[in-house]
Amino acid sequence: MLQPEDFDFLQKSLPFWDRLSAFQKELLSREARINRFAQGQTIHSSENECAGVLLIKNGFLRTYIISDEGREITLYRLDPGDICILSASCVLQSICFDVFVDAETDCEIIRIGSPLFSRLSSENVYVELFSYQLAAERFSDVMWTLQQILFISFDKRLASYLLEEAARSGSPLIRTTHERIARNMGSAREVVSRMLNYFSKEGLVSLSRGGITIKDPKRLRSLIS
Amino acid sequence: MLQPEDFDFLQKSLPFWDRLSAFQKELLSREARINRFAQGQTIHSSENECAGVLLIKNGFLRTYIISDEGREITLYRLDPGDICILSASCVLQSICFDVFVDAETDCEIIRIGSPLFSRLSSENVYVELFSYQLAAERFSDVMWTLQQILFISFDKRLASYLLEEAARSGSPLIRTTHERIARNMGSAREVVSRMLNYFSKEGLVSLSRGGITIKDPKRLRSLIS
Repeated sequence: MLQPEDFDFLQKSLPFWDRLSAFQKELLSREARINRFAQGQTIHSSENECAGVLLIKNGFLRTYIISDEGREITLYRLDPGDICILSASCVLQSICFDVFVDAETDCEIIRIGSPLFSRLSSENVYVELFSYQLAAERFSDVMWTLQQILFISFDKRLASYLLEEAARSGSPLIRTTHERIARNMGSAREVVSRMLNYFSKEGLVSLSRGGITIKDPKRLRSLIS
Repeated sequence: MLQPEDFDFLQKSLPFWDRLSAFQKELLSREARINRFAQGQTIHSSENECAGVLLIKNGFLRTYIISDEGREITLYRLDPGDICILSASCVLQSICFDVFVDAETDCEIIRIGSPLFSRLSSENVYVELFSYQLAAERFSDVMWTLQQILFISFDKRLASYLLEEAARSGSPLIRTTHERIARNMGSAREVVSRMLNYFSKEGLVSLSRGGITIKDPKRLRSLIS
């Protein structure tokens, strides 16, 4: 049985709590378990049974895949308050891959076992929706990682390009097009536009028909180093 | 308005159809559109408005991201009968990245626009669940691609690419260029050409102006396992 404090944590962590029937609430309160894992311990892997849904009370988890040669690629990390869903991948029919989950520090975790989660998920569409939404968030994390792995720091390259151009012209206004920057940098216009829009939202530059104006050279410079 | 044949296709493609109210069904039938795209056309990108949910009646779609050097990384392809959901990423709050979707061949598509899909999704939990389950399937595709990119040696990757292309076209002749293969595989043309020349010397394929012909599918397959 969970301690009252852990029960509170469980309830607050699960957005579908109010959608559960009284019986489902009771089941969950009775069957969820508090588990402790030591730093470095593997909590979930494709070789063992599906660990279930993990609510991180304390500590940090790391999710990764392993290559044939034993190389580890970290996909994302989870913090206190986060919920690990890929450790319940056996419950999610649309997820057909498996990952490793390690305790990156000592961890205190509330675990909803796979059979229970599978039952709740099939009985209650809001539980199922929750699990797939969470999976979509992790999808976003993985896409971010993929871009980091494949595309190295374009923000730095663009920042230094803009500063050089401004220095060359002696004015914060750089009269050019995204297309021309892309050509000069050996990139694609879409990529340049995306990063310039990001710079603009961050207040580093302003964009206009005539070109690009550097608004905050100091912060732009700090991107490079 | 959709033709009766397209309406049938719409209805059969959407697993949540029977969960819709009469009014929602009517709305969907009235507002879904048949769209045609020419080979190579970009259907969805981060720069344009969210295209919405795309039901592929005929043709093939390719989903990819672009690197800072303008290199395209194909994430996955979609076949007739598949549904493209990341083109409606603006509707999915848990998805916070964007991709490009191109018509790889001439395509006939039934499109459910984003505002309509957003409305249905907020009114009907089964529509929302459907979209996240579909996103989870694409997550699985991306994980597969990620492993291909990171882990599998290039000869295996190229062998499995060629076999898949031949299976897709139903012919041992794959009409394509080394450049296009490189783009689809997230590689460089030089690397593809070198490996194809090696395959050709080994008698696995023959190379011609028109494309690549698979000569020994059995040995090509044995490379993969």
